[in-house]
Amino acid sequence: MNGNLGGSVKALVFDVFGTVVDWRGSIIREVEGLSRAKGIAIDAARFADDWRAGYQPAMQRVRSGELPWTRIDDLHRMILDGLLVKHAVSGLSEAEKVELNRAWHRLDPWPDAVQGLTRLKRRFIIGTLSNGNVGLLVNMAKRAGLPWDVVLSAELAHHYKPDPEAYRMPPDLLGLAPAEVMLVAAHPNDLAAAARQGLKTGFVLRPLEHGPNRKPPDTTGHHFDVTAGDFNELAERLGA
Amino acid sequence: MNGNLGGSVKALVFDVFGTVVDWRGSIIREVEGLSRAKGIAIDAARFADDWRAGYQPAMQRVRSGELPWTRIDDLHRMILDGLLVKHAVSGLSEAEKVELNRAWHRLDPWPDAVQGLTRLKRRFIIGTLSNGNVGLLVNMAKRAGLPWDVVLSAELAHHYKPDPEAYRMPPDLLGLAPAEVMLVAAHPNDLAAAARQGLKTGFVLRPLEHGPNRKPPDTTGHHFDVTAGDFNELAERLGA
Repeated sequence: MNGNLGGSVKALVFDVFGTVVDWRGSIIREVEGLSRAKGIAIDAARFADDWRAGYQPAMQRVRSGELPWTRIDDLHRMILDGLLVKHAVSGLSEAEKVELNRAWHRLDPWPDAVQGLTRLKRRFIIGTLSNGNVGLLVNMAKRAGLPWDVVLSAELAHHYKPDPEAYRMPPDLLGLAPAEVMLVAAHPNDLAAAARQGLKTGFVLRPLEHGPNRKPPDTTGHHFDVTAGDFNELAERLGA
Repeated sequence: MNGNLGGSVKALVFDVFGTVVDWRGSIIREVEGLSRAKGIAIDAARFADDWRAGYQPAMQRVRSGELPWTRIDDLHRMILDGLLVKHAVSGLSEAEKVELNRAWHRLDPWPDAVQGLTRLKRRFIIGTLSNGNVGLLVNMAKRAGLPWDVVLSAELAHHYKPDPEAYRMPPDLLGLAPAEVMLVAAHPNDLAAAARQGLKTGFVLRPLEHGPNRKPPDTTGHHFDVTAGDFNELAERLGA
């Protein structure tokens, strides 16, 4: 079955935050670095979790029409400004805030990501399908060595995932049928929204996304075309 | 001066047809292949030149509003259907016409292109800025080994070059100032239009674009930030 699947799929598009890169560990690293450099005590893990927790509500403000289309860099900054108050982090210059916000451009890949993508790239078109903006994704890929064939972002559709428009965009831009494109993600709801637009689905387990000792995402009622423990196993299962 | 230039520029975006790939030689190769396979006599060089000559008028039909936004794959096909009549090429199935039209996805790079881009990629973000649609550019890059960091197309702006919107798009999407982006092209008018939007310009000589014994493009009255004989020389001049 997986052999057949690999045969009909021509492009793999990847969710990025949590699926390709370890946003939480990377943001903790960045915040700890700032904490040391500035001599300010910050609970880096809570700071990282709060920053990420602000993300869905911020996108919802755009969806509701309260805000115009806004790229994630700017949503991250809006959330950050609130967080600096909440966490009582003061004394940062504007340049230091800009640099901290760019931490999202410097996320580290999971250990298997570059090797697995490099292998998958031999057989498939590989690209991003992220709510991250194009500039963020390009900078991240340069730093981390992610070998994308194409950088696709919700920014190009002016619709964040899980809006349907975000999933229709990759097949449209690549000139492929929806069923020739597979979304790879660690998040069942992202995959379910892709499947509703006719894309194939690849579920990759990232048990450490939210830190140690957290429950894996609930997959009850979900069906995925392929499930893998990491990108190397995904390559194996897709015949790459 | 070129050292300073390389220091302020962060991204290089490349015109593709003629600058990165030899469209004429590649289309001749494809048409000759079809001619042999089908046993039809075709003047492949004239066919290639006629196909390319149809391209500016076809884009103009979109600019004028006569046609809605149309990707280049579909413009190429409209031109092709007329050319098959003009060149008295009959007996092609629909599948064969589709395959011939995809010749534009199979253009060969100039001999220095992959090596030069690989070198430039170490120092700069490198991407396309082509009127070719995203799918065409991605397929071309996979086949030819063009190591783009990002595939940008007029398709993303819904404006063909040399419309101003096409040149504003790369700095906008990459989060850069216009002067941090250089267009590299073999065509003075493309570069002049980029410069009017504040981009830097790199002129690369491609004397064989239109075949042997053709005059080089007229550069009278043009100024370029850097001029190079090929992509390796460009890398040299930009300190990459």
